[in-house]
Amino acid sequence: GVAVLKFKNPPVNSLSLGMLMELVISLEKLENNKAIRGIVITSERPGIFATSLDLMEMCGQNPAHYAEYWKAVQELWLRLYQSNKVLVAAINGAYPTGECLIPLTCDYRVMADNPKYTIGLKETLVGIVAPFWFKDTLVNTFRHRSAECTLQLGMLFLPTEALQVGIVDQVVPKEQVQSTALSVMAQWMAIPDHAQQLTKSMMWKLTVDHLVSRDADIQFFVFTSRDSIQKAM
Amino acid sequence: GVAVLKFKNPPVNSLSLGMLMELVISLEKLENNKAIRGIVITSERPGIFATSLDLMEMCGQNPAHYAEYWKAVQELWLRLYQSNKVLVAAINGAYPTGECLIPLTCDYRVMADNPKYTIGLKETLVGIVAPFWFKDTLVNTFRHRSAECTLQLGMLFLPTEALQVGIVDQVVPKEQVQSTALSVMAQWMAIPDHAQQLTKSMMWKLTVDHLVSRDADIQFFVFTSRDSIQKAM
Amino acid sequence: GVAVLKFKNPPVNSLSLGMLMELVISLEKLENNKAIRGIVITSERPGIFATSLDLMEMCGQNPAHYAEYWKAVQELWLRLYQSNKVLVAAINGAYPTGECLIPLTCDYRVMADNPKYTIGLKETLVGIVAPFWFKDTLVNTFRHRSAECTLQLGMLFLPTEALQVGIVDQVVPKEQVQSTALSVMAQWMAIPDHAQQLTKSMMWKLTVDHLVSRDADIQFFVFTSRDSIQKAM
Repeated sequence: GVAVLKFKNPPVNSLSLGMLMELVISLEKLENNKAIRGIVITSERPGIFATSLDLMEMCGQNPAHYAEYWKAVQELWLRLYQSNKVLVAAINGAYPTGECLIPLTCDYRVMADNPKYTIGLKETLVGIVAPFWFKDTLVNTFRHRSAECTLQLGMLFLPTEALQVGIVDQVVPKEQVQSTALSVMAQWMAIPDHAQQLTKSMMWKLTVDHLVSRDADIQFFVFTSRDSIQKAM
Repeated sequence: GVAVLKFKNPPVNSLSLGMLMELVISLEKLENNKAIRGIVITSERPGIFATSLDLMEMCGQNPAHYAEYWKAVQELWLRLYQSNKVLVAAINGAYPTGECLIPLTCDYRVMADNPKYTIGLKETLVGIVAPFWFKDTLVNTFRHRSAECTLQLGMLFLPTEALQVGIVDQVVPKEQVQSTALSVMAQWMAIPDHAQQLTKSMMWKLTVDHLVSRDADIQFFVFTSRDSIQKAM
Repeated sequence: GVAVLKFKNPPVNSLSLGMLMELVISLEKLENNKAIRGIVITSERPGIFATSLDLMEMCGQNPAHYAEYWKAVQELWLRLYQSNKVLVAAINGAYPTGECLIPLTCDYRVMADNPKYTIGLKETLVGIVAPFWFKDTLVNTFRHRSAECTLQLGMLFLPTEALQVGIVDQVVPKEQVQSTALSVMAQWMAIPDHAQQLTKSMMWKLTVDHLVSRDADIQFFVFTSRDSIQKAM
């Protein structure tokens, strides 16, 4: 079967520490449920997809809090990127502050064709250096050159631009986002799961393996972001 | 001079163990022939290019046979991918079961513009996990993202789609496939061969180096394919 | 502030050993100047951008001279590719002999739309094997597949072709090259420099790290180029 995971963290679904922990627990339950082969990831409130990093968690806190927060971000990424389920993102809202961390861990991305919606990543604009593993995810999805500009300039894309650069796979009218996500899911689930899962794991293994030292990555984040986020805001 | 290597293994040119061994011997002879600088690879029977993996060799056999078969597949790939000759694929037929292993080892691919022809790879559909070195060849030719979808979903492409995704370099009317292949060959042979060969070897070295442990790859193939191929068929 | 670095080495701005050394010194001064955040790289003489490798330095000289020359080429590339400044290439002329080493180390490339101008690299045509680090720069900018053909065949591109393949980012009328370069620069300089520099360094680090053994690369160059350049000319 297919599960639907809906983000809900008013007002803008931002990835607070609490939200990250809740997501990791939900994903673990779904991962262990053998009856579930695919997960559609979407927002409960059309119009606001968000799930951006929560600047409040990264601003004016002590280093231990920064470290705890970043560890939770890593954990979510690792769970999603190594999932044995087929993941399809049904992007039914905007990323006002940009980060597309979660959609990029999915096998397929469907986005609503609404000129008010954007997707991308504004990390550098708020003084954050995207971690290397997110950079690798982006290089895998884009071309290296597009990833260079997007990451350094903190670019946001409208739906049609996102399609062209390859950040999403399909753009459809907003009322068709869910049904398209489900039919894409059906296509992926038609593949013998043993072969599909091993193939996916082979494709992404190198990217995951690079995060073997999570501590170094946490320290780099705390070191580079502590002052610069506050300065940029 | 330019040699033309024509596949011939009725009815569909599939890569049986015998065919693999014959190809390796033919390639070794050509490789050692200093008078030959380029090889056009094509099918003797227009309409059927094929050279797909032979499911009969991978179904209901004992593990030792699986291992022997896979070693021969590796050997063919290594010979082709490390060839010092300029290789041009003149694709004058369909790949009914898909695998494009051989064309992707060539320096250039010309395909006949026939809507009955397709090229791609259906490995996952029959329960096979493509080996990492074939994945790497695909990532080098496509974008990483296109390779993800193609490999996981076992996709086949019509000639125009194949051109767009980059699996072939040129699509021409079927009666021009051979002449186009030869004029492409002339273009490549105009380059000082010393510089061209060293440049090619530099581009592909990393991909080849990853296969240093052929045994691990053979065992992975036997382990992952033994049951799943039969189940999928 | 923004500095403008103008090439000037009549008649065709080629990268002689003297010119390389002068460039490295100029770059070091700019790099140490904290008031400078960006550098526009251009030619003093519109019509001739050039800055190609100087074949006179690589032809009929003794091995020690080859080695000294190549070390200087490495040094220039390392300085540019690791620069903490934003680099924008304002390509206001042709590369008659092709190499696009310097523009490819920049963060952004603007080229004049003149059908007499070309950009690319003709290394193999004159018997030179491009070094692996230049290959990596090219793969980062292009797709792997485009880099294969471009490097092996020694291809040159007209401005519109260069844009399509991704070797330049923007093509504009020749009288707008400088102003476009400056407005691109303003866009990059709007990013908090701490975050932008660390992001850039993360993107390119792997490519730079590969050149840890400069001696092996020098010896490979001397060995492969000594006879073949003279033969090709």
